[in-house]
Amino acid sequence: MNRISRDGFTTAVMFRPENIFYSTAFWGEAVAICTKDGTKLFVPELEVSRAEAESHECEVIPSQRGKGLIKSLFPSLYNTKACSDCNDFLLANAIHSKVDKGNFVCDCEPFLIVRSVKEQNEIDRIIEASHILDKLYQTCLEEIKVGVSERTLQAQLICEATRLGGSIPNYPYTLNPFIIAAGSNGSFPHAEISDRCFCDGDLIVVDLTIRYKGYISDATRTFGLGKVSDDKKKAYGIVKMSQSQGLDAIRPSIKCKDIDLVCRNYISKRGYEKNFIHSTGHGVGLEVHERPWIGPENDDLLQDNMVITIEPGIYIESKFGVRIEDTVVINGEKSHNSNAITAFTKDLIII
Amino acid sequence: MNRISRDGFTTAVMFRPENIFYSTAFWGEAVAICTKDGTKLFVPELEVSRAEAESHECEVIPSQRGKGLIKSLFPSLYNTKACSDCNDFLLANAIHSKVDKGNFVCDCEPFLIVRSVKEQNEIDRIIEASHILDKLYQTCLEEIKVGVSERTLQAQLICEATRLGGSIPNYPYTLNPFIIAAGSNGSFPHAEISDRCFCDGDLIVVDLTIRYKGYISDATRTFGLGKVSDDKKKAYGIVKMSQSQGLDAIRPSIKCKDIDLVCRNYISKRGYEKNFIHSTGHGVGLEVHERPWIGPENDDLLQDNMVITIEPGIYIESKFGVRIEDTVVINGEKSHNSNAITAFTKDLIII
Repeated sequence: MNRISRDGFTTAVMFRPENIFYSTAFWGEAVAICTKDGTKLFVPELEVSRAEAESHECEVIPSQRGKGLIKSLFPSLYNTKACSDCNDFLLANAIHSKVDKGNFVCDCEPFLIVRSVKEQNEIDRIIEASHILDKLYQTCLEEIKVGVSERTLQAQLICEATRLGGSIPNYPYTLNPFIIAAGSNGSFPHAEISDRCFCDGDLIVVDLTIRYKGYISDATRTFGLGKVSDDKKKAYGIVKMSQSQGLDAIRPSIKCKDIDLVCRNYISKRGYEKNFIHSTGHGVGLEVHERPWIGPENDDLLQDNMVITIEPGIYIESKFGVRIEDTVVINGEKSHNSNAITAFTKDLIII
Repeated sequence: MNRISRDGFTTAVMFRPENIFYSTAFWGEAVAICTKDGTKLFVPELEVSRAEAESHECEVIPSQRGKGLIKSLFPSLYNTKACSDCNDFLLANAIHSKVDKGNFVCDCEPFLIVRSVKEQNEIDRIIEASHILDKLYQTCLEEIKVGVSERTLQAQLICEATRLGGSIPNYPYTLNPFIIAAGSNGSFPHAEISDRCFCDGDLIVVDLTIRYKGYISDATRTFGLGKVSDDKKKAYGIVKMSQSQGLDAIRPSIKCKDIDLVCRNYISKRGYEKNFIHSTGHGVGLEVHERPWIGPENDDLLQDNMVITIEPGIYIESKFGVRIEDTVVINGEKSHNSNAITAFTKDLIII
């Protein structure tokens, strides 16, 4: 609320579950209205008792769903200057038909900016999620064998992650929660899980995201199986060094695009410019992808206690892919080795 | 496209992955523009080769992400009358700054209406997802024991579902993919998974959604463990009969609200009116919750080949919950017993 009020707003109105959780510790179907006098949490009847049990320092207000819910918000929206994460076209128009646009500003960015710099208790949970990831990569060493399918490995990893207290974040653009992409499937950065079995000579990209008590860690390792060819080993070595140089470059006040440039230049100079087909990384926290964006056009500056990924890759169409990714806490006092909170080795392991 | 053009539009512009998948068989980060001359699929560079491999009858057009993507759409939006599922406030405003509002209408409903009546190949996949659910409930019989936790059971079920080719749908308002709610947790319809262990005397609500080749089935069973008290058995019997009467009432051309009323009346007349705190069901398909809505205020008519859930429940605060849910294909020719495509028994099983 402090950050929002610095921008001259008296009220924050939140519709997105991530922002509501950030403000109230309740993750569910709700709307939160926050002023200096406290937070009101409007929830449909089916969520009232859970919201009362799980939310912190809120007044829980039972309300209807849909149009009825919006009606119940209006009394709290008159005579305020509100900033809202509402990015729903119809909903925003409905509210703007009753409340002046200048007094109900739809802008997600202030919320994302606040969330981009983490508190210690948030970092602690991201570290816990990273520990789960480290265990899952250890499991990969045991489970990856010739003849085992991508789908079977995914099942094993999800089972273990869930047992360890992790859950699977929502990512709307894939049907499967993990990316496990063997051989030519690895050339798709966002490959879907298939029934393809691991073969001798494969590189296998394993990109895992795990949520722990709300907070996400994101990492990728690429494993080799059997007789891995020299061109694959060469690409692996380049990605590994690119990622390492990206980590080394991280410090408070560096521009995001300069981190991207470090990773990209290393790959480009070795002839793979056209094979690194995505940005270098992204912030991570309550969402898999959030501020700051570590891409070639972003002038934003890194700050202490931001949490980002560094994940360069090389993708050779119809042949293979390599990606190596860590989740990193920006902390001016530490070297990158302690910042990268996924500890599992980045040496090429050939199983 | 036929339905959209009946409303006088020449072009459909799709941003939501469900609608893009429906039109192109590609699930990913993309924008689809569909006219009578064919479909253009605009995808960021990292998704191009996957889109080319997975999409059907599309021209795949490599484009940038974010603002660059929007720019590349404009040439296809001039001199058309487009209907779009765009419900993003900033994006809609950006497009409306260049294209007349009347020629770029933001309205998700036509897309949801088309998707609400399923083709046979969609129904077949929902039936496959239901078969997976039946196997998971069989697993529950083996795994539910005193001392096993909700979290452990979830891990086991996710593992099995994933092995069987299922994946976990995104539902934004819970952190866990399944609802497994034992004892007093069962009184929260959208309970989160916890480390609570099953105890003698518990009712255990197990609400599972599984996606198979894109399409979702949704079901709930409530199990008893050990010495289940008479008040729990009584509530179970009422929910079971309410659900059965709801299924019996299903036929083409009945109003959605009349189905809701059948289930609700049965429960209300037995004194539990205040304990059935959600609507009776919802459509299911590419999303867990989609048209039609089986709630008390919906005058929409059921039609053949719609797929819906029927899921009445009774929730006793701080004590227990009961919910029984099937996914059902509306088919005028069949009795409800063959329409309810989850086959697992709805008798109270006491483990």
